[in-house]
Amino acid sequence: MAIRERVFSMITGVFKMHGAVALDTPVFELRETLMSKYGEDSKLIYDLADQGGELCSLRYDLTVPFARYLAMKNKTAMRRYQIAKVYRRDNPANGRYREFYQCDFDIAGVYEPMEADFEVIKVLTELLDKLDIGMYEIKLNHRKLLDGMLEICGVPSNKFRTVCSSIDKLDKLTLEQVKKELVEEKGVSNETAEKIGSLVETRGPPLQVLTELRKEGSKFIENDWSVVALNELEILFKALEKSNALDRIIFDLSLARGLDYYTGVIYEAVLKDGTQVGSIAAGGRYDNLVGDIVAGKQIPIVGVSLGIDRVFPIMEQQVTERNQVIRTTETEVLVSILGKDLTVAAELVSELWGAGIKAEFKLSTRMQSHTNYALKSGIPWMVLVASLRLGTGR
Amino acid sequence: MAIRERVFSMITGVFKMHGAVALDTPVFELRETLMSKYGEDSKLIYDLADQGGELCSLRYDLTVPFARYLAMKNKTAMRRYQIAKVYRRDNPANGRYREFYQCDFDIAGVYEPMEADFEVIKVLTELLDKLDIGMYEIKLNHRKLLDGMLEICGVPSNKFRTVCSSIDKLDKLTLEQVKKELVEEKGVSNETAEKIGSLVETRGPPLQVLTELRKEGSKFIENDWSVVALNELEILFKALEKSNALDRIIFDLSLARGLDYYTGVIYEAVLKDGTQVGSIAAGGRYDNLVGDIVAGKQIPIVGVSLGIDRVFPIMEQQVTERNQVIRTTETEVLVSILGKDLTVAAELVSELWGAGIKAEFKLSTRMQSHTNYALKSGIPWMVLVASLRLGTGR
Repeated sequence: MAIRERVFSMITGVFKMHGAVALDTPVFELRETLMSKYGEDSKLIYDLADQGGELCSLRYDLTVPFARYLAMKNKTAMRRYQIAKVYRRDNPANGRYREFYQCDFDIAGVYEPMEADFEVIKVLTELLDKLDIGMYEIKLNHRKLLDGMLEICGVPSNKFRTVCSSIDKLDKLTLEQVKKELVEEKGVSNETAEKIGSLVETRGPPLQVLTELRKEGSKFIENDWSVVALNELEILFKALEKSNALDRIIFDLSLARGLDYYTGVIYEAVLKDGTQVGSIAAGGRYDNLVGDIVAGKQIPIVGVSLGIDRVFPIMEQQVTERNQVIRTTETEVLVSILGKDLTVAAELVSELWGAGIKAEFKLSTRMQSHTNYALKSGIPWMVLVASLRLGTGR
Repeated sequence: MAIRERVFSMITGVFKMHGAVALDTPVFELRETLMSKYGEDSKLIYDLADQGGELCSLRYDLTVPFARYLAMKNKTAMRRYQIAKVYRRDNPANGRYREFYQCDFDIAGVYEPMEADFEVIKVLTELLDKLDIGMYEIKLNHRKLLDGMLEICGVPSNKFRTVCSSIDKLDKLTLEQVKKELVEEKGVSNETAEKIGSLVETRGPPLQVLTELRKEGSKFIENDWSVVALNELEILFKALEKSNALDRIIFDLSLARGLDYYTGVIYEAVLKDGTQVGSIAAGGRYDNLVGDIVAGKQIPIVGVSLGIDRVFPIMEQQVTERNQVIRTTETEVLVSILGKDLTVAAELVSELWGAGIKAEFKLSTRMQSHTNYALKSGIPWMVLVASLRLGTGR
C-alpha cells in the first residue's frame, strides 16, 4: 500500500499537470450499457445476481462508464482522470487479476485535428518516464489505416473486425499461425492472407514508416481510408516530435487492438527489457461510443488506460535492490509508558496529537517491548515515562 | 470530487497521526464469510451471479473484510485504516445510497484494558472536530452493560439479541412503541418491558451516569456483566477526560446497535444541529469476529466507521455559504495559440510540462474563446501566441 500510494500520487500528479479533473463512477453499471462493447471478451464480465430491480454488472473498464457518464450529462467536453478498480472473470493462472486498477486519462470534445490525440500520447510518455520502470516503446497504428490495409488486401468490409482480432494475436502467435487462422477460421483467401502477412510486418520510426507508406506506387495513397489516416498521423508525429516524445513511438501496422469501439489512432505501451509484463498501457480514439449509449449524441473521445498492478512488483523489486526502506506508517514519536496507567499515556500523547505530531503510545512494564516496537516500526523518537525511585543513589 | 479529495486527505491525516497503516481488500468476499454477521440486515447484501467458481458477494462493510484478512494472515496485531466503498441493497428513497464510502479505523490485538478503545474514540473526536461540520455528540454504551441490564429486567439470555434490536429502534420509534413491540412481538412480559423502558432513559455526562449506576442500592453493582462493564468504562472515561475528549461523550443506556458482532464498548456519533443527517459514525469492540471466521483464532478488535457521504452535502453548502471557490483543476498556465498550428503549441506547452508547470493549451483563432476558457477554469496565467503583421503601424 505504501508503494501503491506513492505510485498513485505520481500518476495523479501527471494527470493534474494536464488540467484533468477527477471523476468517480459506481462499481457497477446497467448490464445493457456494457453489452456489445467488448467483442469476444464480453464473456469476462461479472454480473450481479438478479435480486430484484435493475440488472447490473461490474465495470469491465473505465472507458465505457466514462462514455455513459458523458451520454447522461449535459456535457460536450471534459478532460478527466480516474484511478479505480475494474473486474474481469479472467483466469488468475494466466497472471491476470480478476480485480485490478486502471489509471485512465481521456479528453472528450471537439478539437483541432490530433490536438487531443497528441496530448494523450504525451501524457502516456510522461507517465512511463516518471514511473521509471525500464525501457518501453509505444506501438501506434490507426484504425482507418488498418481498414484501408484490409481493403487493399481484398478483405470484404464485413470481415474487418474479425480479421483485426486475428491480427491482434500477433503478440502471442507467429505470423504463420495468424495467416493459417485467417484462411481456415476467418474464410480469407490464401492470396489475401499473404498480402496481409507482408504488410503487417511494416514497423519502425514513425516518420520513416510514414514516408514509406506514402512513396510513389504505394497502394496506401490510393485508398481513401489510408489517406485520411496518414494525414492525421503526419500532424500527430510532427507535434510529438516538437514535444520530444516521438522517439518513444514505433509505427506498427500489426497493432490492431481487440476492442470494438476504436475509430482512430490506437496505441499500446510495452516494456522492452524482457520482463513478462508485456503491455502496460493502451488506448486510442473512440468517437462513437457516446452515440452507442445515447443515440444521436456524438462526443469524440481519445484516451489511455494504464494497468498499474503489473508495475507494483517491478517497483517493489527496485526498492529491494536499492536497499530503500519503505515505512508503512509515518509515526514520529512513541510515548512509552513503563507501566499500566492509561491516564498518563492519554494526557501525554493527546498533547502531541493536538500539536499535529504523529504519535503512538504503548503501555508495558518491559523496556524491551518498547524499544523493539520503535525499532521495528522505524519510529525516530521515544518519550519514555517511568517513575524513578528517589534516594537509591543509582 | 474536489471536496471529496480534500475530505479524504483530512481523514487520512488523522489516521496517520495515530500510526495506522492503509489496507485494501477486494470489493467482493466469499459469500459464506458475510453470512450471519449482520443480523436482519443480511438481506441487503448484494450477491454476484453464479457464473462458475466461488459464490461471492459485494462487501457490506469494511469490518468483516478486515477480520477476514486478519483471520487469513499470520498477524496478531494491526492498526489499519481503509477508506473504500461498501454496498447495500437499501432503498434510495430513504436517503440511503446503495454504494457509499466508509472510512474505517481499527486497532486489532491484545492491549491493556481500554487502551485501544480510548484511542479509537479519540480518533473519532479528532475526525469530527477536523471535519468541522457542526455540533455532535458521541452516544456510548457497553454491550455487557446492556446484557446486565436485560438480565436485571428479567429477560432470558436467549432473547438478548432480539430485545436489543428493538431497543436499537429508539431513535426512530417512541418509547411506548418500543415497549409495545417488546411485549407483542418479542414476547416480553409487561413488567419487564416497563423496567427496560425506565432504564433505557438513563443518559447524561459519562462520569455522572457512572456514579449513578454505581450508587448504593443500584441493581447494576450486583450484576456480574454490569460490574465488568462499569469498571472498563471508568478506565475509559478517565483516559478520555485526560485527553480533553470526554465532553463529547454521552453515556446512553438506550444505545444498542443492531449488528451481532459487538462484545464491549459501543458508540455512535450524531450531529446535533437538527440536520437530517443523524448518525454519521459508529463503532465498538468486537472480540470474536476473527474467531467466527477461523475457528480457534482469537484477535480482539475495536474500531470505528465514518460514513462520509452524508458529510459531502454539508461541506458543499459550507463552501457556498462562505463564497469559497473550489477549482476542479490546478492548471497554472493556458498556452493560447491564436491559430491552428499544433506544432507551435506542442513545443511551447511541452517546455512548461517539462518544467513541472501545470499547463493546458488551446488552438483557436477567436481571442474570446481563449479568455472565456481561462476565466471559467480560473487559470491565473496565459501565454498568448499570435503572429503580428509588421509594418501596419498599429
